[in-house]
Amino acid sequence: MTVQASDEVRAAVIHAPRDLRVERRALSPAGPGQVAVKITNGGICGSDLHYYLHGGFGTVRLKEPMVLGHELAGTVSEIGAGVSGLSPGQKVAVNPSLPCGHCRYCLAGLPQQCLDMRFYGSAMRTPHVQGGFAERIVCMAAQAVPIPDHVSLEQAAFAEPLAVCLHAVSRAGSLLGKRILVTGSGPIGLLLVIAARRAGAGEIIVTDIREAPLAKARAIGADHAFNLSADPDALAPYAANKGEFDVAFEASGSPAAILAALPVLRPQGVLVQVGQGGEVALPISGLVGKEIEMRGSFRFHPEFATAVRFISEGLVDVTPLLSAILPLERAVEAFDLAADKDRSIKVQLSFG
Amino acid sequence: MTVQASDEVRAAVIHAPRDLRVERRALSPAGPGQVAVKITNGGICGSDLHYYLHGGFGTVRLKEPMVLGHELAGTVSEIGAGVSGLSPGQKVAVNPSLPCGHCRYCLAGLPQQCLDMRFYGSAMRTPHVQGGFAERIVCMAAQAVPIPDHVSLEQAAFAEPLAVCLHAVSRAGSLLGKRILVTGSGPIGLLLVIAARRAGAGEIIVTDIREAPLAKARAIGADHAFNLSADPDALAPYAANKGEFDVAFEASGSPAAILAALPVLRPQGVLVQVGQGGEVALPISGLVGKEIEMRGSFRFHPEFATAVRFISEGLVDVTPLLSAILPLERAVEAFDLAADKDRSIKVQLSFG
Amino acid sequence: MTVQASDEVRAAVIHAPRDLRVERRALSPAGPGQVAVKITNGGICGSDLHYYLHGGFGTVRLKEPMVLGHELAGTVSEIGAGVSGLSPGQKVAVNPSLPCGHCRYCLAGLPQQCLDMRFYGSAMRTPHVQGGFAERIVCMAAQAVPIPDHVSLEQAAFAEPLAVCLHAVSRAGSLLGKRILVTGSGPIGLLLVIAARRAGAGEIIVTDIREAPLAKARAIGADHAFNLSADPDALAPYAANKGEFDVAFEASGSPAAILAALPVLRPQGVLVQVGQGGEVALPISGLVGKEIEMRGSFRFHPEFATAVRFISEGLVDVTPLLSAILPLERAVEAFDLAADKDRSIKVQLSFG
Amino acid sequence: MTVQASDEVRAAVIHAPRDLRVERRALSPAGPGQVAVKITNGGICGSDLHYYLHGGFGTVRLKEPMVLGHELAGTVSEIGAGVSGLSPGQKVAVNPSLPCGHCRYCLAGLPQQCLDMRFYGSAMRTPHVQGGFAERIVCMAAQAVPIPDHVSLEQAAFAEPLAVCLHAVSRAGSLLGKRILVTGSGPIGLLLVIAARRAGAGEIIVTDIREAPLAKARAIGADHAFNLSADPDALAPYAANKGEFDVAFEASGSPAAILAALPVLRPQGVLVQVGQGGEVALPISGLVGKEIEMRGSFRFHPEFATAVRFISEGLVDVTPLLSAILPLERAVEAFDLAADKDRSIKVQLSFG
Repeated sequence: MTVQASDEVRAAVIHAPRDLRVERRALSPAGPGQVAVKITNGGICGSDLHYYLHGGFGTVRLKEPMVLGHELAGTVSEIGAGVSGLSPGQKVAVNPSLPCGHCRYCLAGLPQQCLDMRFYGSAMRTPHVQGGFAERIVCMAAQAVPIPDHVSLEQAAFAEPLAVCLHAVSRAGSLLGKRILVTGSGPIGLLLVIAARRAGAGEIIVTDIREAPLAKARAIGADHAFNLSADPDALAPYAANKGEFDVAFEASGSPAAILAALPVLRPQGVLVQVGQGGEVALPISGLVGKEIEMRGSFRFHPEFATAVRFISEGLVDVTPLLSAILPLERAVEAFDLAADKDRSIKVQLSFG
Repeated sequence: MTVQASDEVRAAVIHAPRDLRVERRALSPAGPGQVAVKITNGGICGSDLHYYLHGGFGTVRLKEPMVLGHELAGTVSEIGAGVSGLSPGQKVAVNPSLPCGHCRYCLAGLPQQCLDMRFYGSAMRTPHVQGGFAERIVCMAAQAVPIPDHVSLEQAAFAEPLAVCLHAVSRAGSLLGKRILVTGSGPIGLLLVIAARRAGAGEIIVTDIREAPLAKARAIGADHAFNLSADPDALAPYAANKGEFDVAFEASGSPAAILAALPVLRPQGVLVQVGQGGEVALPISGLVGKEIEMRGSFRFHPEFATAVRFISEGLVDVTPLLSAILPLERAVEAFDLAADKDRSIKVQLSFG
Repeated sequence: MTVQASDEVRAAVIHAPRDLRVERRALSPAGPGQVAVKITNGGICGSDLHYYLHGGFGTVRLKEPMVLGHELAGTVSEIGAGVSGLSPGQKVAVNPSLPCGHCRYCLAGLPQQCLDMRFYGSAMRTPHVQGGFAERIVCMAAQAVPIPDHVSLEQAAFAEPLAVCLHAVSRAGSLLGKRILVTGSGPIGLLLVIAARRAGAGEIIVTDIREAPLAKARAIGADHAFNLSADPDALAPYAANKGEFDVAFEASGSPAAILAALPVLRPQGVLVQVGQGGEVALPISGLVGKEIEMRGSFRFHPEFATAVRFISEGLVDVTPLLSAILPLERAVEAFDLAADKDRSIKVQLSFG
Repeated sequence: MTVQASDEVRAAVIHAPRDLRVERRALSPAGPGQVAVKITNGGICGSDLHYYLHGGFGTVRLKEPMVLGHELAGTVSEIGAGVSGLSPGQKVAVNPSLPCGHCRYCLAGLPQQCLDMRFYGSAMRTPHVQGGFAERIVCMAAQAVPIPDHVSLEQAAFAEPLAVCLHAVSRAGSLLGKRILVTGSGPIGLLLVIAARRAGAGEIIVTDIREAPLAKARAIGADHAFNLSADPDALAPYAANKGEFDVAFEASGSPAAILAALPVLRPQGVLVQVGQGGEVALPISGLVGKEIEMRGSFRFHPEFATAVRFISEGLVDVTPLLSAILPLERAVEAFDLAADKDRSIKVQLSFG
């Protein structure tokens, strides 16, 4: 057999704002400890949209063309030397997180804070780490997490954003029986509803400023879902007794949402900030007087395996969040659809 | 209207081991802040069985006749002065816990450790606190927790033992995605399976020495249920890597079960001890070397409301645990059935 | 003996910004469960200064004349009915916090968040709760915490601000061996240095924009004290490795100080906000990316007894912070001195 | 320069119970990343004594001759290739713990639970890991932690047992202002007093059955030190209110001490088990009813650096614990003295 030095696959490459192209990219064979995965499903994430719409977010900016995508599922197509436990054809969810394994944070059990992280489809470092919206990718074997045959690859591609939400839930501590606020009902907000329910939340209330995703929130089990655009005072009753929510998950990155959460959180209540955003004019004395805790939550690590398990065992149902699957060649259309919150929750690309 | 100074109801009264009688007891009218509840369902708990079979447990011993029972549901039959929010006919679960509200533990958020606790059907103090296996009882209005009409009173009578299990889960911290061992599959062990699943456990494994309750464990969602009587080495694979369980809930009170859990708990793993029992010959160096944590868990407080909510909202299903309902006049038969772990999980009494 | 229905004492009363008067106020005798305390020392706090300089802070505004003062020490002068354990002449520190003891937060172990709190010298509620800058006050016996004879009343009057700092330390969790940043070196910042050292901090670094209090910080044991006015980049080396501080205590209420702390906190590091203030333009993605925790800290409860104990046992030395003691009749001069951070740390009033 | 393939040093080698010999052992030169350290001071630990007196403890048994010793200080004598930050002559404390750095526990921030730990002077694995009671040793550069010139090597050799105690304190969570019981006043018990005080304990009470170490406990700052041999009921007053201690550190490994701690721990109080031992007949219902937490504590990791820092900065004073220093050739006499708790606390060996 002749081993080829490289191969070519089609991929969705962002060049600049609104300049997303389907191009051919070289692919090396799976090296030692690696596997190749034939990608079938790739979910479009909010950060993919930021690159597509704005060329980045905050201080993270595109400096060179980059393959997008980090919500990935597919089947193993090639096994590198020394890899055991995986066979060609195995369905897998691909963990896009590759920490170094030996920096101070990796050794402290915080690999998501790795000083030398390589996370797919991210412009945080230059050269950028290429993403996985491609017909095939090569990854470390440990990144390819098996799923059972009876689970669809559409569902498996939700493992990554679900892991983000499980990590956020984990940052909040036990939710058992607690009253929870979720601000923002995009894909992350809705997966937070699912994750919080799975973690034993007692009552879950969602806010947004669009009706379509709020309807979805109700459909997947939120106890209440309020449209703050239509009814700006919907949360007012929850300000009684210094605040009636134990925990808020902020998934919009909107300053208004953060400020709306503070008066309805109980003293020593916790606001887990998941949404990325710019600046919020935070009232210092408000934080102090009620002893509010704000905790950032970023990516995940052990939660990826948990997400795969929950999806595989039927302990969560993510299928209601899937709005559409478009083939790679219609990537631009898929991104535009994903950017339209009135028409879609989660949009996936399919490959070949 | 003529207010009667007292009334009479039939009740299940324990006098001595194996001496359980259905007797008439006087009942005062509901005073200020109180309600009377017509009891419909009363679950027989392990501690009820201890009084019935042995006259008590540990240092807690019957010193006078006592009405048994603290897993109670029924309908409000009388409203005392100054009570709002409850109407006659309202279905309620009755919280048998009545802490004083002003001792150091009540003020520290640990009312279950109240220095002046009055808990139904308990011989911990003398005079004993009478229980609720009676046609009607009078309690503080706050003890009568409403349930929706569509929820059965059979289910509502599970609120108390479910609260015990939710408190045990709460003692363990977040279970999200974790691998859990439950030792003992009586009513508490099985409700722990339900509670741990509700709290986001990743994998739940149950052990016991009888097949019937293990089959029930599998039926309600345990990932594995091992009969250690038939296969004493069933847990051996979980001793790999210093132990593979994150948390163990010990519900049997059996020394053998505690000792079996230690080698399979991971370093810094947590064993929550729920089952009451005598002495266990604990290996000190085993505890030290793996830095195991053992945490006692006793009763509950906020978890009663959570249990009612979970049952009312259909977030848990306790019905598979109900083995039989017998009328009060067959109380002795009901207790004998409840004591036979091969034939029953939870046995309830019905009243009138 | 003739018991007088009331008595008169001189007190420091704030009427409006810069309008502080020494006036006579009526004083009732000690009722049941109460004692009268002859105040000897009263420390001027930052909130006293806010009323004096600005008529309040945030939404808290003077609506009527109010006796200032809540850092109080003195000797018991009268014992009300039913009080045991206190005798006339006993030296005491006075706890200015009087929670209701039965609201949901009191019962949850969070009395500092009491829904019906009466805290001395506070305009949070109307009628305002009068303070203790008076020759004598009447308080509940439990508020008068004994100190040993060998401890000076000057030191005892530090119990309250030290309790604030111990509570902030408690909000941070264990400090053992950790690297700590304290921003702001006024009385609270310096007491935070003392409290953090007492709690086992490994390295303590202080920042301010004035040299005098920084010199004091060094004198009481800060490992480094940086003048950010003279050297704005002094903290830059601590931004290495995503941040080198485990915990920051923010005692200035200054937005610039909060923003300076974020880049030097390690991932999942904790910023305890103690200083009151207006708004800070907080970068959301900065909080998210490093998973920073911001925790408000407000007042104290069990920490008051701990503060008294630490002072009484010589486990802390607060005396270096005392800049001057002025008699009540020179209250305006004392407040002006307290407001001048170049000339004073803590200024106390003496009474009679 | 001629590099010798190996060298010879004298060392204290245990062959069997009571068979401790001073022998010559080969020493390789410092390899890449390594340094050689000329050992000056080596403290005799309880586990050294167990090997000396009994040939091991629990299941850990001598299977071959082993150099003892893991409480080590000295000066750097040779620098291996690629080592920076250390120079010949530098005073160092030697960290005897060498985790693998890549197993699941190392990556979870629990290196003390490493699956492939190499800890000096331990027979836990075979071949045994040789200890450091030798004139010179070779170790990884990171194990040689610098101490300032002004700090004595006698003190530096306390870094290891102090780290054990700091880890135990860390296992207990915040001690700020809490009432602490320490059972056992050998070197570990006394260092626990020092560590708990450094960590902000409010009141520290020590028990033992010998007067000499209790007198030392009082001398180093214990608030009370009770001889339970002379006064078996000394702790009885602390059983009031269900128990008055927040935390107990058990340093004796004695079942009697564990059982004595349970009634005096408050509900949800924590017993940190540090002392190794056999079996204790633990009352299950006692643990459950008060919801006691027992936590094993084993060795240390980040706490070694903290211990060095505390000793170097004068934040703790370990010198009162040093009873005697004997030269290597009198090792048997030194071990006999260390085993006599009436005559010694900590005994060190000196080398050359």
